[in-house]
Amino acid sequence: MRLGESDLAITVSGTDKGNLDAADIMSIDLSGHSVSGKKSSAETSLHLQLYRRDPNIGAVLHTHSVNATVCSELVADELRFEGLELLKAFDGITSHEASLALPVFDNTQDIVSLAEQVERHMRTAGQGHGYLIRGHGLYTWGTTMSDCMRHLEALEYLLEYHLIKNGVAKQ
Amino acid sequence: MRLGESDLAITVSGTDKGNLDAADIMSIDLSGHSVSGKKSSAETSLHLQLYRRDPNIGAVLHTHSVNATVCSELVADELRFEGLELLKAFDGITSHEASLALPVFDNTQDIVSLAEQVERHMRTAGQGHGYLIRGHGLYTWGTTMSDCMRHLEALEYLLEYHLIKNGVAKQ
Amino acid sequence: MRLGESDLAITVSGTDKGNLDAADIMSIDLSGHSVSGKKSSAETSLHLQLYRRDPNIGAVLHTHSVNATVCSELVADELRFEGLELLKAFDGITSHEASLALPVFDNTQDIVSLAEQVERHMRTAGQGHGYLIRGHGLYTWGTTMSDCMRHLEALEYLLEYHLIKNGVAKQ
Amino acid sequence: MRLGESDLAITVSGTDKGNLDAADIMSIDLSGHSVSGKKSSAETSLHLQLYRRDPNIGAVLHTHSVNATVCSELVADELRFEGLELLKAFDGITSHEASLALPVFDNTQDIVSLAEQVERHMRTAGQGHGYLIRGHGLYTWGTTMSDCMRHLEALEYLLEYHLIKNGVAKQ
Repeated sequence: MRLGESDLAITVSGTDKGNLDAADIMSIDLSGHSVSGKKSSAETSLHLQLYRRDPNIGAVLHTHSVNATVCSELVADELRFEGLELLKAFDGITSHEASLALPVFDNTQDIVSLAEQVERHMRTAGQGHGYLIRGHGLYTWGTTMSDCMRHLEALEYLLEYHLIKNGVAKQ
Repeated sequence: MRLGESDLAITVSGTDKGNLDAADIMSIDLSGHSVSGKKSSAETSLHLQLYRRDPNIGAVLHTHSVNATVCSELVADELRFEGLELLKAFDGITSHEASLALPVFDNTQDIVSLAEQVERHMRTAGQGHGYLIRGHGLYTWGTTMSDCMRHLEALEYLLEYHLIKNGVAKQ
Repeated sequence: MRLGESDLAITVSGTDKGNLDAADIMSIDLSGHSVSGKKSSAETSLHLQLYRRDPNIGAVLHTHSVNATVCSELVADELRFEGLELLKAFDGITSHEASLALPVFDNTQDIVSLAEQVERHMRTAGQGHGYLIRGHGLYTWGTTMSDCMRHLEALEYLLEYHLIKNGVAKQ
Repeated sequence: MRLGESDLAITVSGTDKGNLDAADIMSIDLSGHSVSGKKSSAETSLHLQLYRRDPNIGAVLHTHSVNATVCSELVADELRFEGLELLKAFDGITSHEASLALPVFDNTQDIVSLAEQVERHMRTAGQGHGYLIRGHGLYTWGTTMSDCMRHLEALEYLLEYHLIKNGVAKQ
């Protein structure tokens, strides 16, 4: 979460995300430098790519649901959602007659390189509202933490929708 | 929920339905006019269509479950449920040897027009106990809020039943 | 639940099973007569059939899960479970090398006739540990309420197992 | 859980695992002898095999989820997971470019013989992080109880992933 113009709160590296307390959250600047000397999350570069490119991004969330992992392996380049009222949950979408792309990037342990790939994609395809890393999980963001949470809830809804719909589609 | 003969409680436009408090509920009359000047839910016309047509309707609920959205896209005109004990959860049904239709209407952002379409359908097909809007969600109603909640629980049960049954039906 | 040799506790007719309080439970004898004059559950005869045939039955539970309803419609006469460690949850079963039949009876609103059909089946096929009513739900029983609850949990486990396994079996 | 070099805490035989209290946990040594005279879990030999072979194993957990039971019946010898970020949840795995085998052993009520079979398998295939018993459940372990819980959560994630992915794979 963005605390000030170039001051960000992020989880400490290696923390159990199901059991966080205040000491598991640290502060870094937009270049990734830690004031406290603690080591920030291994995926810090993916968070920084978003905060740097758009000053209106105030929060970034990254999750690893089973549904996100499965969906990331079912398609080559992107999932696309159309004609759903729920698309109105995303900032700037005011009708179900919209189209939301959720791009999928191949996973790598080279997070700096992955962040550059995400940035290049956004320069041509647009920033969008989230993306999947294959076999790994979901990133989403928003102007406030509340917006980001709403986008996360909406994306998880869409992933569950995709899986249920395709599971029965052959009937 | 109906408060008096022509006095209705409804959610304020744009509220987070997972985080409602008293200020998110407002009062309107049967023509949709707001006493307080607050703006009521974007789907007010769909609620009014029901309260106007039947003075015995005391409560209307609208939900957006993943199951409702998926089911609304699996059929052309309606889902039909037959031979299930659970049908006795609906007012006026006293045996499993009944047939419940759940019509599906195409989604539109023109809610007034959609409300008219629902009204026309009910005049020929009967009022029923609920309907789906395609890619959007579920409407149901009842004499009391408790009846309406029971209808909602029963409809969500039937939607889950439909999806699980069709997911394994080809075995 | 059996309170004494011929004294049974049962729910009052028409109660909301998700919202029971003490006044929703009444006492009847083995012939179904109510001391208080309250009307007992519409399915009282199905409970009495079990308490009458076996003095060791101290508790009977009847549920309506979606999984039970779907499973009851997937087979003609019975579900059969074999080779599962969980079968040891049932009284008298001490190895996974066992076979548990869960018979399915067609639903009817004539509960007295259904109870007679269940009794006839048990006289030839054995009492077993539970049965399904098609499109309706599950009955199970036990020596104590704790045994009955364990049987219920085990049967719901087996029904979920059956549905998940058959949902992916064609891979 | 290992309490000292040759002192282990284990559940008493026949306890309801959903309703444990302190009296349901007893102490045994590495040869399985009980100090208190209570009888330990019927599967004590499977726990001992792990504590004996590796002094770094401080905790062992055994569960019976529906997903584990279904998965154990879908494959002949093992499930194998590759290319998933979640593999980093296991001790010693630092990249998604890893391969985790989850072997499946046939169930038997002869637990001593099963423990010998597990030991033989580990001598050739390596100790790994867990295994399934067919139609029965899952065993996993770790240096501390916290590590063991993380392995359990990760294995249940992978089992759910396997089932969801294969349920929609034919689309």
